[in-house]
Amino acid sequence: MIMNKKVCSIFLVAALALTTFAGIQSVRADKIEASAKMQGTVQSESTTGTESEEKNTIPKYIFLFIGDGMSYPQIQSASYYLGATQSDGKVETKELSFMQFPVAGSAQTYDSTSFCPDSASTATSISTGYKTYSGTINMDTTMTISYETIAEKLKKQLGYKIGVLSTVNLNHATPAAFYAHQASRNNYYEIGLELVKSNFDYFAGGALKQTTGADGDQTDLYKLAERAGYTVIRNQGAANALEAKDGKAIVIHDNLADSDAMPYAMDADENEMQIADYVEKGIEVLKNDTGFFMMVEGGKIDWACHANDAASSIHDTLALNDAIEKAIKFYKQYPEDTLILVTGDHETGGLTIGYAGTNYDTYLTNLENQKISYAKFDSDYVSKYKKDFTDFSFVLEDIEENFGLAVEGENQTLVLTDYEYKLLENAYNRTLDCGMKSQKDMTQREYELYGSYEPLTVTITHILNKKSGISFSSYSHTGIPVPVFAQGAGAEEFQGYYDNTDIFKKLAGLTQVK
Amino acid sequence: MIMNKKVCSIFLVAALALTTFAGIQSVRADKIEASAKMQGTVQSESTTGTESEEKNTIPKYIFLFIGDGMSYPQIQSASYYLGATQSDGKVETKELSFMQFPVAGSAQTYDSTSFCPDSASTATSISTGYKTYSGTINMDTTMTISYETIAEKLKKQLGYKIGVLSTVNLNHATPAAFYAHQASRNNYYEIGLELVKSNFDYFAGGALKQTTGADGDQTDLYKLAERAGYTVIRNQGAANALEAKDGKAIVIHDNLADSDAMPYAMDADENEMQIADYVEKGIEVLKNDTGFFMMVEGGKIDWACHANDAASSIHDTLALNDAIEKAIKFYKQYPEDTLILVTGDHETGGLTIGYAGTNYDTYLTNLENQKISYAKFDSDYVSKYKKDFTDFSFVLEDIEENFGLAVEGENQTLVLTDYEYKLLENAYNRTLDCGMKSQKDMTQREYELYGSYEPLTVTITHILNKKSGISFSSYSHTGIPVPVFAQGAGAEEFQGYYDNTDIFKKLAGLTQVK
Repeated sequence: MIMNKKVCSIFLVAALALTTFAGIQSVRADKIEASAKMQGTVQSESTTGTESEEKNTIPKYIFLFIGDGMSYPQIQSASYYLGATQSDGKVETKELSFMQFPVAGSAQTYDSTSFCPDSASTATSISTGYKTYSGTINMDTTMTISYETIAEKLKKQLGYKIGVLSTVNLNHATPAAFYAHQASRNNYYEIGLELVKSNFDYFAGGALKQTTGADGDQTDLYKLAERAGYTVIRNQGAANALEAKDGKAIVIHDNLADSDAMPYAMDADENEMQIADYVEKGIEVLKNDTGFFMMVEGGKIDWACHANDAASSIHDTLALNDAIEKAIKFYKQYPEDTLILVTGDHETGGLTIGYAGTNYDTYLTNLENQKISYAKFDSDYVSKYKKDFTDFSFVLEDIEENFGLAVEGENQTLVLTDYEYKLLENAYNRTLDCGMKSQKDMTQREYELYGSYEPLTVTITHILNKKSGISFSSYSHTGIPVPVFAQGAGAEEFQGYYDNTDIFKKLAGLTQVK
Repeated sequence: MIMNKKVCSIFLVAALALTTFAGIQSVRADKIEASAKMQGTVQSESTTGTESEEKNTIPKYIFLFIGDGMSYPQIQSASYYLGATQSDGKVETKELSFMQFPVAGSAQTYDSTSFCPDSASTATSISTGYKTYSGTINMDTTMTISYETIAEKLKKQLGYKIGVLSTVNLNHATPAAFYAHQASRNNYYEIGLELVKSNFDYFAGGALKQTTGADGDQTDLYKLAERAGYTVIRNQGAANALEAKDGKAIVIHDNLADSDAMPYAMDADENEMQIADYVEKGIEVLKNDTGFFMMVEGGKIDWACHANDAASSIHDTLALNDAIEKAIKFYKQYPEDTLILVTGDHETGGLTIGYAGTNYDTYLTNLENQKISYAKFDSDYVSKYKKDFTDFSFVLEDIEENFGLAVEGENQTLVLTDYEYKLLENAYNRTLDCGMKSQKDMTQREYELYGSYEPLTVTITHILNKKSGISFSSYSHTGIPVPVFAQGAGAEEFQGYYDNTDIFKKLAGLTQVK
């Protein structure tokens, strides 16, 4: 921000001179604030726009949406996918709601260990303003100092109600980073104990992992939660019926999928609650005159991109957008009190809209042919193939039905080339032969082809992606920055290109927590 | 911007109420402007901050830097490369100057043809506010309507002096889009004729292409330029000596490289003028009391990324940053009159900081071992190999010297695996055998491996990239958005996530040209 200080100072002085000249010390200072915030020096006070009536501008209702693994490629591919599929394949964009927010900054995501950071360290940065090692949650790199999170500060210092929501496990790294403090993100049970002790008001999403500890010999976390005063809800009817007067609640999705997370959006049943519904319920139970902070993670965007499943990434990004629209609806009711932030923690997969083989062409509507996620194909189909040694000809039929890829057909962009057929056949043999292997047991080329995924399935999504003009280059996280979209009270604070630790700092500055 | 209209209106009304209340119609309106600009409705007038003294806030000195093919991955990789190499391999960032600008928005880049657009259509969008077909310069999709460019408008309507600079040919797509109007970007001679007729004040960079037409039977473009009153300069001494009083000038770099463009930054001689020097000279000759507009293209970032040469992309991005620093120095002298914009036209290559094989690790310092660009390796080494059928063992020595990749060595992250050795050997045989082939003559796998590049060279950069934890997934442009960094007069206008056509609209709004 160095280059801007001078001109900002000029603006600030001029603006202050104006207010003094007019004899008004408490005129609406939003614009002064907006300018001065560019220096990062301003306390967030402004007034209603009328003389001498002071009003605290600390945002009272704060939504922080984190698309795990969601950066520019994930958002733009979802937007272009909607544009293409809703216009019969034309080159059109259809912006997601949050892309229309007035402020869209960028945040660098590197952590203390890596330019390709993990979700524990990046969520620590967002939640506490500190960088740490990949895998560590809200502790320093010596693992001796614990950092208090923005959610804990808002609860303690301002009395805000707190909600933590995720499409993946509620003691997974990202949600954990708002209430837990652990040297390792894998300390699921200990993280669960911290969840119980957090006294936060509303948890919703995927199930807790390792509820009786890594060795299964600990007291069940849900039991501990109930003892601590939480209502633990595990069915949709009760979730729908939950009210604010019921007190603290943990709502576990009742149709759990891979790793006890919520299902991918594209696999969800029609009447099943989605993350948008949990946000809507969250608004209902958290709304109070003091304020609330709600962190909502779209966690399976990351999982989909790890597996190089573009269609699942797109549909989970759209599901997160639906959830954000619930916050936007709320914002419209309380525009001066509400701040909505939408960001990612890092990019996953090196997703690109483009592929060497298709050059400047894309065929995004081809992705409509994918009916289920890679994970559901693994569980519903591949598991049977491995048991029954299903003939490849039948497998090809399932592939056509679920992914649109065909040996022959009218849409030439979906017909398998000889090269692709061979890739699929090899992958299937590998799936039947030994399935997933660790990297050290694979050749470099094999790992490029399959990563740690089921060879058949990842080959299917690779081929469909490429035939759609989409590609991935990694099974891990990458180092490109993430966008930070902001709307509402204090949104101006989030413009520019900064570090992910600044997201915490800006939030803490706005809310004046220490 | 729909979601924001309501709150913006509230801000605007409140801000206007304040100025009315204070009895000042012409108080410094920057902040009102900043808010109202979020609606895109405001004329750009503000004053000095003292009562009744009116001042035009139209930015008088406008710099528009376009990194061709430069999006988030190109910028962030350059920044992380600097961080790593200047800290002995630590995980640190070193932000480029423009990354510290107060405003950093994003622009979508799709054109009328493709989600992976070309430089002609995207520069048309930036320059005129219209989308058109890939390959078309400042004409509509029926090829009947010509669009006037922002540079032409600023010259005609405001009397600004105009500079057009590029590291590639001055009649290449991006620079052409500021003065030419052609159905095809390949009409180099016709574009050159328009350059001559433009009456623009300062052109500098790579040579003109096809100066005597596609068939070599036309009057030389430089002769025509001289007849039209241009001083045509082709040596560094004369370029250095150029003064404003010399009038209109075309400065051609005197050490031309591939395709008569300027050399890649990493190949340039120590005392050779770089794009930063041409910007500095441009400021000197364009500076006048009315104003100037200078478009500067870093064109070889794109060329490097097409060829999947990460090191060249990084060094050309850093060279563009050096050029931007000249503008920043000028901005510091005239902060209220100067606007600096830095953007890209599209991403090229699907560059990612990350690679499947290295997972979460990167070894960015490995890229320091690359001493020359892929293009210089082609011209200085590969051309000889092809003539002499050089033995592969000697080729390996050159590869080690120029790229650090070795059959054995202390730095294990640079030692070739068996798989990589085989890839190199196959590529070399292919280079000797038939060299570059067109896509239709290659298998899908071959095209993934080599694209349209020299098999040996592109295989070398692929291997070095991956060993550095960097990868590409295309030889073409991709569809992720580009950042738009802004500093100075009217910078606030450029926040948010918008369309590339809005860059023109915002500039035209600020400068009040029609």
